[in-house]
This record gives sequence, C-alpha cells and structure tokens, in this order.
Amino acid sequence: MEQRTITTEHGSGGAATSELIDGIFAKAFDNPVLAQMEDSAVVPGADEIAVTTDSFVVDPLFFKGGDIGRLAVCGTVNDLLMRGAVPKYLTCGFILETGLPLEDLEKIAESMAATAQEAGVTIVAGDTKVVEGRGGLYVNTAGVGFAPCSTIGARQIQPGDVIILSGNLGEHHAAILSERLSIDTDIQSDCAPLVDMVGALMAGTVAVHGMRDITRGGLGTILKEMAEASGLTFELEESRLPVTPKVRDFCSLLGLDPLYMGNEGKMAVMVPESDADEALRLIRMSAYGTHAAVVGRVCAGEPGEVMVKTAVGGQRRIDVLRGEGLPRIC
Amino acid sequence: MEQRTITTEHGSGGAATSELIDGIFAKAFDNPVLAQMEDSAVVPGADEIAVTTDSFVVDPLFFKGGDIGRLAVCGTVNDLLMRGAVPKYLTCGFILETGLPLEDLEKIAESMAATAQEAGVTIVAGDTKVVEGRGGLYVNTAGVGFAPCSTIGARQIQPGDVIILSGNLGEHHAAILSERLSIDTDIQSDCAPLVDMVGALMAGTVAVHGMRDITRGGLGTILKEMAEASGLTFELEESRLPVTPKVRDFCSLLGLDPLYMGNEGKMAVMVPESDADEALRLIRMSAYGTHAAVVGRVCAGEPGEVMVKTAVGGQRRIDVLRGEGLPRIC
Repeated sequence: MEQRTITTEHGSGGAATSELIDGIFAKAFDNPVLAQMEDSAVVPGADEIAVTTDSFVVDPLFFKGGDIGRLAVCGTVNDLLMRGAVPKYLTCGFILETGLPLEDLEKIAESMAATAQEAGVTIVAGDTKVVEGRGGLYVNTAGVGFAPCSTIGARQIQPGDVIILSGNLGEHHAAILSERLSIDTDIQSDCAPLVDMVGALMAGTVAVHGMRDITRGGLGTILKEMAEASGLTFELEESRLPVTPKVRDFCSLLGLDPLYMGNEGKMAVMVPESDADEALRLIRMSAYGTHAAVVGRVCAGEPGEVMVKTAVGGQRRIDVLRGEGLPRIC
Repeated sequence: MEQRTITTEHGSGGAATSELIDGIFAKAFDNPVLAQMEDSAVVPGADEIAVTTDSFVVDPLFFKGGDIGRLAVCGTVNDLLMRGAVPKYLTCGFILETGLPLEDLEKIAESMAATAQEAGVTIVAGDTKVVEGRGGLYVNTAGVGFAPCSTIGARQIQPGDVIILSGNLGEHHAAILSERLSIDTDIQSDCAPLVDMVGALMAGTVAVHGMRDITRGGLGTILKEMAEASGLTFELEESRLPVTPKVRDFCSLLGLDPLYMGNEGKMAVMVPESDADEALRLIRMSAYGTHAAVVGRVCAGEPGEVMVKTAVGGQRRIDVLRGEGLPRIC
C-alpha cells in the first residue's frame, strides 16, 4: 500500500486541511473546547496567569525515550511549572513539510495527547501550515497556567540557599546525539513533564526561591543566567553532579561536558538550606526525581559568577555555553 | 560591509542566542514583563479568557502592504477579536533558517512591535530556534484575550440575520501572488488588526451573532464552515461583494475567484437585520472598514448550504475550497 504523505493541498485552508485536522488532530486531542473549531478557544481564566511559548525543531522526530510531540508538551508545561504555576491550557501550531508520512503525524499527535493527559493540560487551540520540504515537522506549543507563585524568580534567590538538581544530567542530549551519529547506545531521553514534583513542592512547606528547567545550554548556562539575574555567586560541587556511568562514558568519548548538555525533564531549584531535606524528599517522590541531589550553594561573593569545585580539589569559573552546541536538540 | 546572517550558533541556547535575543527581540518588544527573561511570563488574568495560536510561513517575507511580522500579530489578534475578546498578550516563537540576514529579522521584529502597539497587545514571552535552511523564517504567535463574548459563535447565528463583510475581498492574496509571479501591480495586502471595529461593535448596542476573519480559503470557505456549524443556509449576492477593479482584473487574468482568495484584515459578521445599519456605521468608522457592505442573509432553508445569487440572476451552491489554493499566503 502506498504511504500517504503531506502535500501542499493540506495547507490550502480548504477541504484537505479540514480533513487533516478532523482525521488526526481533533481525533487525538478530542475535547469539547477544541471541538468548537472557532477562531479562538474561550476558557475559564484566573486572577493571575503564567504564559509561555516554545518551538520544537528536534531532529530526528522520533528518538529513544520520546518524540517531538512529547517534547513539545513537556517543554511548555515545564516552563509554566518553573514559575510555580499549574499548567492548564496548551495551543499547538504545526508547520508540516511536504512528504511527511501521515502515519508519523498521527503517532506524534497521539504522543502529544498522552503527554498532555499525563501533565493534566488541555489542548484548546491549534493551527496547521504546510511548507515545501523533505518530510519534516516543526511544532510550537504555547501554554497558560494558573496561580503562579510571585515569590519564585531569580531575584528571590538568597545567599545560603542550596541548589538542588532533580536528577541525572545530559540524557536527552546524549540520546539525540547518538541517533544523529548512529552511535549504538541505550541512553534514553529524560523528556518528562515535571508536574508532580513541582506540585508537591508548591503544596508543601518548602520556600522555593528559584526554579529553572535545564534545556538547551545545559545546567551551566542556566545557572550562569540565574546567577547574573540574582547578583549572587553560585558554587557547584562537580563530584555531586548526578551523571550515569553511561552518559559519563558517552561524554568522555566525544569530549563533551555534562554541564552544557541539554535535558528535557530536569530542573534546578534554589531553597533555604533548612528546607533542603524536605525539598529532596518531595522531589524524590516523583518517578522523574529519584536521583535528585544537592549539588551546590548560593553565596554573596562576586555578583553573577558560577564557580565549580572540581573533583580533584581545584576551582573553575564557568560561563554560558559559547559556540555552537548541538543544533536541533529540542 | 559583509552582511551578518543567522548561523547555527544562534540556536545553541548559549551566548549567541542571548545576544540575538537582547540585540533584536528584547530591544524591539521592550516591556517589563518580557525583560524578566524567566521561563514564563506572569501577568494579570481574567475570569474568562480567549486563547488562540497561528503559525506564519508566508513567502515572500516582505510584500506590498506588510511583512510576516505584521501578519503574525494581525492574524492572532484578529482570531481573539472574532470571539469578542479584547486581545491582551502575545507570545512569539521564531524558527529562523540559517542565512537569514539579521537586518531582515530586525525589520520584522520592529514591524511586530509597531503592529502590537497599534493593536494594544503586549508581547510577553518568546522563543527562538535555528534550523538549517535558505534564509527563511517562520513565526508562531499565540494570544490571550480577556472578556470574550459568550453569545458570539456559529451556533448563535439565526435565520433573518444579515451577513456583513467589512471590506474588499482578495487583496492580501493578490498582493502575495503578484510578488511570487513577479506581476507588476500596486495591489497592497489588506493585513490589519481589526481592534477598533470589533471594539466599537462590542461596545455598541448591536447583537453580534457570528464573526469570522477571512484568511486562507477565503470568504467562500469560512461561510460554508459557518453555515455547517449553524445548520442554516447562507445566501450571498455576488453583485454586492466589494472587490476593487484592480483585484477583479487580477482575478480575471489568472482565472481566480475572489470568493476563495485570502484576506488578512477583513471579517464577516452576522447580525439581526434590525441592527444592520448600526453595525455598518460602527464598522465604517474604522480606517479598515470604509468599504463594509451587507452581502447576504441567513435563512432556514437547507442546513449547511451557501447559495450565491450571481450577477446575471442565476444561483449556484458553493463549497469549501477544493484543491491546492495558493500555498504559503500566510
């Protein structure tokens, strides 16, 4: 049987577009709001909302531990969570290249629907465009969350706070890179929605000062950005950074530094030292947080610096990622 | 001087990405919410909100009467307005192809900022990705609006309603097509935010039952979709459809039907016949609504049909756009 693929007709805005929407997206994302098929979705709001957007261009579309659809839901859900908000609504904008097998699109839509269900969000609006291409696909997800926590943000971080990492570094990056370089490994992407661990932290007694998920640029880049925004010094202990032996070997082989590798289901959290044990306990209750660890601390020191105490007792100053990094990991 | 263009380094998530964001987007979109540069924007909400998304892949990026940036703001703002909502926040997701001149990106960002200001919306969150390509650019805008009107929607349309068109058909489509085919014409895209005309309708005494902007697929497609959703028959009078002589000549030359050509600053509104004069007066107060006209009426008849009374006295049944249409007009 001939494989059916995306054609320019699917982007016409006419009959073929609506067949595509009905046959794939409306079916996978099925809910009463989306079913209205109006120009925008009307939904209940809240006094204060968190709003975010993220586009996904990952190559390949399918990889060990996930696919572009799961990634697109997790990325935006996690960005809402990082402000202490409860993720509620997602919008999806698809840019489809001609030649994309409809079967792949269907799998991606189903993966998005399953991940949205896991994360407790509803996909309320969508859009589909078609461009000439080679069977690829880009997805944008924008998100709205309720009840953000106004006391979370880089400026709330204080000297004496500890830095907690919710799990092992580098897995998403290593999974994508191994697909691209055809390296035979069973490292899986860590791509996951952090709803339950952040929900537990928000519901508990822990004073969360800063929270960021670790995506492009890796832990090193996001900590440097947070140190600069807070005007404080962050001290990391290299020996405490959780990295699996497989990822460590992978990094050694390719000369990569786990500090600059992207994750898609990990976060760094800054809390007062007195709350550290409780924060760890809450994070570790999540299936995605079992390897959480305290990896460093915040001090007054030089504004905007991140210092790493190396395993052999030295100290180095780190910066944001310079140079290319690996393109299209998310 | 050598022209600076987008490179894969701009997509690393590291230093080059943040230079791009600071140098172009933060500068053009400058506002306190965006300046926080957190994972998501925390902003005031409302009891009920409208949410929408739209991706833009128009080719070429710049055309007579607008550019991809103005289009991206207008498209999403108009989708919020069509539910009677007041547009408040936009998010922007950029997918940049390598080779894109930074100067072009700067012009597009400035155009978005100017159009956002015209429309009264704030750009509160953004994201930038880079893919290998040939100097192109895609933009996604998602939007949030306040106080949507729950009595607007295809299901509220009633027999006896008149159908008002806010202005001339086909201008955006003709402008893009003439650029693509290098046809020498001064037809300009009608791309515009419909904030003032919809605001006037919402503030006034007119009972708006249905409202849709006319984009891909043209007036014919959106009316057919609305007729199906309402279960009523729409009757159009061809002689009343406002089309400029230039666009009419352009269509004749290429064998196009203005009913299926895309606009980006026009809408169709359904109101009770007794409100028609007031609705026309309010729409015509806007600079973008001076050619508004009553073009048809709604009746019980056959559910989901759109009938066109032709200028020569005949009658034809129309359907949604079949076949390709022109790809990448928006």
